[in-house]
Amino acid sequence: MPHTTEYRVIYGDCDPFDVVYYANYLDFFERGRTEFFRDIGLTYRLISDTGVFSPVAETNCKYKSSARYDDLIVIETTIAYLKRVKIRFDYKIYRKEPRKLLAEGYTVHAFVNCEGKILPAPQEVIEKVKELLCEA
Amino acid sequence: MPHTTEYRVIYGDCDPFDVVYYANYLDFFERGRTEFFRDIGLTYRLISDTGVFSPVAETNCKYKSSARYDDLIVIETTIAYLKRVKIRFDYKIYRKEPRKLLAEGYTVHAFVNCEGKILPAPQEVIEKVKELLCEA
Amino acid sequence: MPHTTEYRVIYGDCDPFDVVYYANYLDFFERGRTEFFRDIGLTYRLISDTGVFSPVAETNCKYKSSARYDDLIVIETTIAYLKRVKIRFDYKIYRKEPRKLLAEGYTVHAFVNCEGKILPAPQEVIEKVKELLCEA
Amino acid sequence: MPHTTEYRVIYGDCDPFDVVYYANYLDFFERGRTEFFRDIGLTYRLISDTGVFSPVAETNCKYKSSARYDDLIVIETTIAYLKRVKIRFDYKIYRKEPRKLLAEGYTVHAFVNCEGKILPAPQEVIEKVKELLCEA
Repeated sequence: MPHTTEYRVIYGDCDPFDVVYYANYLDFFERGRTEFFRDIGLTYRLISDTGVFSPVAETNCKYKSSARYDDLIVIETTIAYLKRVKIRFDYKIYRKEPRKLLAEGYTVHAFVNCEGKILPAPQEVIEKVKELLCEA
Repeated sequence: MPHTTEYRVIYGDCDPFDVVYYANYLDFFERGRTEFFRDIGLTYRLISDTGVFSPVAETNCKYKSSARYDDLIVIETTIAYLKRVKIRFDYKIYRKEPRKLLAEGYTVHAFVNCEGKILPAPQEVIEKVKELLCEA
Repeated sequence: MPHTTEYRVIYGDCDPFDVVYYANYLDFFERGRTEFFRDIGLTYRLISDTGVFSPVAETNCKYKSSARYDDLIVIETTIAYLKRVKIRFDYKIYRKEPRKLLAEGYTVHAFVNCEGKILPAPQEVIEKVKELLCEA
Repeated sequence: MPHTTEYRVIYGDCDPFDVVYYANYLDFFERGRTEFFRDIGLTYRLISDTGVFSPVAETNCKYKSSARYDDLIVIETTIAYLKRVKIRFDYKIYRKEPRKLLAEGYTVHAFVNCEGKILPAPQEVIEKVKELLCEA
């Protein structure tokens, strides 16, 4: 089941067409994956405190409809896969009321140390993701 | 030949890892395509003043290396294709000195009227892009 | 009593010093006044739908301490005054746990029509603010 | 004489009222002071590499008129004062053509070490600012 988090659109997120600027959906993706990790007992701060970082290696977003000022949006996040050295999150962005799919996309992340050297996925991440898959 | 434009990275573009936040590469893409259009005698304002808008339908970015604070970056923009109802721009983002590829990606745009109805590409755009292809 | 709303800091809000970039506190101010208005039965969309806009005429922010990545912050908003043609909101930004004042500031807004002509405060705003003052 | 730098407004800078979002003027301020410092032979990176940081302690902006999409704006930066432990920059933001004052404001900066302890202004900064004052 996807993890969901909500976000209220402000003027600062929008562009002159009265819709959320296309780059800002990537902020929504960050909100989605951060809250997803928090819910399974991991935080990005925790991971980076152990010297492992997970920079974005690739992102993609398909825009279906427009999020507008003051919309309450729902960010649905799932883990598409966890491989030895990378993880992919999938996102769907919905307007809450009336419900409508606005965008969908993904981010692929590597695991690296503070010098940028690629590392295998941290053990905590592997275990938490396994738990999730067993529950599902 | 790709169109190039330059941009200086500020603190406001960066994240706690001292690199440009991943969403902000999409701002670089916007700078690239806007200056590209200006150079061939088109502006987005001109196009939207005629009632035609070109919202982003899809974007993709692959991150190769990191743009850092105070880097002067070079945005290379090309038109990958112009079809009846859509156009795709390709981008490469380089650090200027020493030159290094930082990211590459694309945006696909539809043409719509102010109600969001899909339109064919405006005649001015078709003609300018044809001219470009003849020159190349 | 001030109105409070909460917000979770993401990487996209922060700068290379691992703290929220100074401009982004103004986004927090917008969140604060929007939720304040919603709570008293007004929305910015409602006001602008009647042809009245309330652009920011002045802003000020004093930075006391730093909001950091993943902090849950509390935005306290009060109305400092409502005059014939302007309104001022005051803001205090706190880290929630452990509680600490991070910043305080204000925004002054004019009321204008769609051509930018200054208007008196809309009747709905005056009435709602009067109600608030009576309750307090 | 004020230092000037130019910047082209993109959609990503604007809000639904087709004007630059109020927080983004603070990005313009950062561009202004960074280029000012570069022109007098200082860079923020240089200063922070010596372990001295200059976080913003206060900012203020008065909005006079609106910067719009595709406007070329001019950022005029001056040093209002340099005191023992702080420095203030003043900014004026103009639309270039036709020239019009859009906003004016300031930022006050402290000097701190990496633990946030307040330091006196670095000697390089004092000397460069003295040179500037002698020339003026």
